[in-house]
Amino acid sequence: MSLDVPDLDRVVREIADEMRARPDRGEVATYIPELAGADARAFGLVVIDAEGRIAAGGDSDEPFSIQSISKVFTLTLALGMAGDRLWRRVGREPSGSPFNSIVQLERERGIPRNPFINAGAIAVTDLILSGHQPREAIGEILRFMQFLAQDSSIAIDEAVAASELRTGFRNMALAHYMKSFGVLDNPVDFTLGVYFHHCAISMSCRQLAQAGRFLAHSGRNPLTGLSVVSPERARRINAVMLTCGHYDGSGEFAYRVGLPGKSGVGGGILAIAPGKASIAVWSPGLDASGNSHLGRIALEMLTKRLGWSIFGA
Amino acid sequence: MSLDVPDLDRVVREIADEMRARPDRGEVATYIPELAGADARAFGLVVIDAEGRIAAGGDSDEPFSIQSISKVFTLTLALGMAGDRLWRRVGREPSGSPFNSIVQLERERGIPRNPFINAGAIAVTDLILSGHQPREAIGEILRFMQFLAQDSSIAIDEAVAASELRTGFRNMALAHYMKSFGVLDNPVDFTLGVYFHHCAISMSCRQLAQAGRFLAHSGRNPLTGLSVVSPERARRINAVMLTCGHYDGSGEFAYRVGLPGKSGVGGGILAIAPGKASIAVWSPGLDASGNSHLGRIALEMLTKRLGWSIFGA
Amino acid sequence: MSLDVPDLDRVVREIADEMRARPDRGEVATYIPELAGADARAFGLVVIDAEGRIAAGGDSDEPFSIQSISKVFTLTLALGMAGDRLWRRVGREPSGSPFNSIVQLERERGIPRNPFINAGAIAVTDLILSGHQPREAIGEILRFMQFLAQDSSIAIDEAVAASELRTGFRNMALAHYMKSFGVLDNPVDFTLGVYFHHCAISMSCRQLAQAGRFLAHSGRNPLTGLSVVSPERARRINAVMLTCGHYDGSGEFAYRVGLPGKSGVGGGILAIAPGKASIAVWSPGLDASGNSHLGRIALEMLTKRLGWSIFGA
Amino acid sequence: MSLDVPDLDRVVREIADEMRARPDRGEVATYIPELAGADARAFGLVVIDAEGRIAAGGDSDEPFSIQSISKVFTLTLALGMAGDRLWRRVGREPSGSPFNSIVQLERERGIPRNPFINAGAIAVTDLILSGHQPREAIGEILRFMQFLAQDSSIAIDEAVAASELRTGFRNMALAHYMKSFGVLDNPVDFTLGVYFHHCAISMSCRQLAQAGRFLAHSGRNPLTGLSVVSPERARRINAVMLTCGHYDGSGEFAYRVGLPGKSGVGGGILAIAPGKASIAVWSPGLDASGNSHLGRIALEMLTKRLGWSIFGA
Repeated sequence: MSLDVPDLDRVVREIADEMRARPDRGEVATYIPELAGADARAFGLVVIDAEGRIAAGGDSDEPFSIQSISKVFTLTLALGMAGDRLWRRVGREPSGSPFNSIVQLERERGIPRNPFINAGAIAVTDLILSGHQPREAIGEILRFMQFLAQDSSIAIDEAVAASELRTGFRNMALAHYMKSFGVLDNPVDFTLGVYFHHCAISMSCRQLAQAGRFLAHSGRNPLTGLSVVSPERARRINAVMLTCGHYDGSGEFAYRVGLPGKSGVGGGILAIAPGKASIAVWSPGLDASGNSHLGRIALEMLTKRLGWSIFGA
Repeated sequence: MSLDVPDLDRVVREIADEMRARPDRGEVATYIPELAGADARAFGLVVIDAEGRIAAGGDSDEPFSIQSISKVFTLTLALGMAGDRLWRRVGREPSGSPFNSIVQLERERGIPRNPFINAGAIAVTDLILSGHQPREAIGEILRFMQFLAQDSSIAIDEAVAASELRTGFRNMALAHYMKSFGVLDNPVDFTLGVYFHHCAISMSCRQLAQAGRFLAHSGRNPLTGLSVVSPERARRINAVMLTCGHYDGSGEFAYRVGLPGKSGVGGGILAIAPGKASIAVWSPGLDASGNSHLGRIALEMLTKRLGWSIFGA
Repeated sequence: MSLDVPDLDRVVREIADEMRARPDRGEVATYIPELAGADARAFGLVVIDAEGRIAAGGDSDEPFSIQSISKVFTLTLALGMAGDRLWRRVGREPSGSPFNSIVQLERERGIPRNPFINAGAIAVTDLILSGHQPREAIGEILRFMQFLAQDSSIAIDEAVAASELRTGFRNMALAHYMKSFGVLDNPVDFTLGVYFHHCAISMSCRQLAQAGRFLAHSGRNPLTGLSVVSPERARRINAVMLTCGHYDGSGEFAYRVGLPGKSGVGGGILAIAPGKASIAVWSPGLDASGNSHLGRIALEMLTKRLGWSIFGA
Repeated sequence: MSLDVPDLDRVVREIADEMRARPDRGEVATYIPELAGADARAFGLVVIDAEGRIAAGGDSDEPFSIQSISKVFTLTLALGMAGDRLWRRVGREPSGSPFNSIVQLERERGIPRNPFINAGAIAVTDLILSGHQPREAIGEILRFMQFLAQDSSIAIDEAVAASELRTGFRNMALAHYMKSFGVLDNPVDFTLGVYFHHCAISMSCRQLAQAGRFLAHSGRNPLTGLSVVSPERARRINAVMLTCGHYDGSGEFAYRVGLPGKSGVGGGILAIAPGKASIAVWSPGLDASGNSHLGRIALEMLTKRLGWSIFGA
């Protein structure tokens, strides 16, 4: 915890070097055509500690599609708007099934199990939209990301969003299915338009780690000194990340890494060491559960070497 | 963290008093006939901190049937015997379904999702048994509990074990089903005999909190100074408790309490504050997910007042 | 079999009278708003025997929304276009679940179980569409119905089709879901447009019984003398109707009525007594499985009194 | 229908010859060890028409394990004992899943979908047992088979029954699971003992076709002149055979063969042409749904050549 900065720097660089050299890289996601071209050799890692010191390794300034990592931030936004009313629309239990399963929705009458599977994130997006125009809601989410990272250059990759709009039939099915149970208020096309756009936000590891710092520090963003959420809400968002943040690999991530985290099919992971650091890692190759293969391994090494697991020294 | 002992004492007693006065007490489990007679008014709470100081409130010395809490200890024992080979027989992902669901077993060809649902614990018990006589395995598990708690008076309630043997048809179905996939090695009756007996161990909150201390302290039992498991294994058991320890209420428990924990249908919960304390609570009335209603509420109060959540201050 | 026409007339009229007097009428479907206004007191029954003699009772000339009964005719059309290639897109096994279940599609990778559940009928419609404009496909299906019934007054109720287009979220979910597996070739909106329109065809019992005659007579329509399908194909369509024609009430219908049949949520049923008669019945109130309550009872009486069950005298 | 006997003889012999020569023979079931040794080259076919004339081809007098075909006769017996009360314990809808699936039981609280999947047949056996000793119930079922076939040499293959008792873990799981819902009255071991024994009855095609004749002739056994069940009950048993008699291949059998039938994993099929004939076929190799591969093909040829489909000429 009282790690010297040179040490943290060294650990991060060593891990990045080791990761870049490994032959096993997972499989780049192909189901969103625009993402299929990602370079499987890319690897980036950024750690920002409580004092704001930044340790960076690899492709730490390369922007990538954050995809499902955006769900942490839309959940935060939606809780700010709707408070605990949000939990009437979406549960907070692990799903026990793949990220885009529709079976659970049938059994539980359209209420998604948690806000981090696709159906749940679509329901959360619908709450943010609530009567506004899609363009306004997209702008609001983007500005929130820029505000958290204090970086107005963060942008949406319109080609990725358009690619999803053309091919995201599974998500369209999930959304119409929830609509049939009355779980969505807005026109399905509106809600999905916003959803595909916030998933298409591009950020670097550095920007992402900055944006996540409020979750490591009791809801307060040390960069601005402003409180984003209450300490209790920060803890609770971390708890949902721990139990549900990696789809059907959430148990595995908790077991190996021991930190709350959220992954995206673009290959990024945001991980939080409460009180200690905000961490972003990126490597496009995925494992069988759809989580970054080397990203998870890098985080496992990092928490082991730094003793940062929330489950004990 | 640096709480004065009188303060801890006071917090524990205040919570116990408040809990004993509450009108909402959940429902006592009736599916094991011998447990149906438990007194819904009972409530006990014991916290043992890193220095070994004990704060106790309510019926803290009343023995109760630990039921599924025993699964934490059989997992620990079986990992000691089989090491990571254990994970070929049982997964470590949350189940997304009730504790005795058989559906998942069909989809995943007899491999239970985790060691804390019934099917998974039966598979773990089968590993412990591995060729021995049931009587020997039962003795070994009981002695392990006595050793951890340093209390040779801990015993099995034979009436509860017999009650389960007569009526535990669901568990018999789960076991035969796994057997049909070749997941169990021993005769089903042998494995279930051991399983029903270790679930029938009776312990008080004080004994249970003692037995769990190694999980709070990097695998070492401060009472004996002996290492029970490696620090890494202790962290990993805690991780599995966090994601899977409360059946289909695991997400809720992480969200509200923020500690690794394991519940039993007897109304007990063992919770671990890594580096800080081992905690046992007991109140027989259960919530809809089969976890102690007041036990969970008491732990939520406790972690909030003491700032012990692993998800941040 | 060698029933005198006066006798058949009498049986049909007696059943119609008895049905109109019964207090139990089932529940009119409300999920398509335009259908919710149907008169639960309506009842119609028409039997056309091998010689073309027509026995009619009750509201036999009142048009109603044939809904899923149209699936028998779209299956016939699609088999004519695609032959057995059709069975690569859709199975022919009973579903074991409600008519609009999405669970089976997930398990079987987007291939619907049979052409008479909604998903299967949408896949069949997609085959009929195959590259044409929706308007053309709708026209073709409508003309096929007019040709079979030799009645050019048969029309589509545009208000019903529009009502489905506005509210059919479950069907939209099914279609997008199949699209995600590559089971549909055409744009989802095109396919559903055609589907909702052919479900919205309005026909009377008299027209419907005429249209179904080819299935009772080895594929030949006695009205025109023209062969619609081969004898083998007629038998096979009847077989699929018997096993799959009443959703999750197909077993019950076979058990009680003993004839191939297809129901619709508008309250109609087309039933076929091979070699003997084509039968149409209509009463808007549905039972728990979504089939016409009095329609089924009337058919049970009819087959019993006439000895028409295919399962024996 | 008015087929000359020499013609029927010729058709049966030709089909038997063709079947014996085919290279594709399916896979002999291995999950019951005692059945694994069956000769895949065996093929037998017997047709008994309304006048009692017998046409036989191939290994028509070779006894084989009737396995699930026994379920038709236990259903008949149990309906005689319990009447329609039986349907409170078991449904009559196709299952939409494999013969030994346990998933449906969880969704429908222990009530099997129909009497021809394993769970349903176990529930039916439990009704026959109802308080008696297993030995008595086994004797009663066996005597019923001997009476129907008028052949007291029909016997149980004890080696097959013992093999199932040792290895039938899936069926034990199903039985315990139903017991946990209160669907079985007797001790699970008693019920399964009877079940395994009636499945282990050995019969030749000739004996089996004799035993099934009452189903072809309005419930009356032409051999004895005695009525076994009412005409209505015979029709209804045939209906359940049609919709549920071939597990998850029931739709396929109806589509291709067009007769009510019941298959067993021993490779036998009993098929009924109402009013015309009782048919038994046997070939040990099974298809993917667990039904006799050549048996089904032979029946398809037979009904096609004789015009016996219940779905039309």
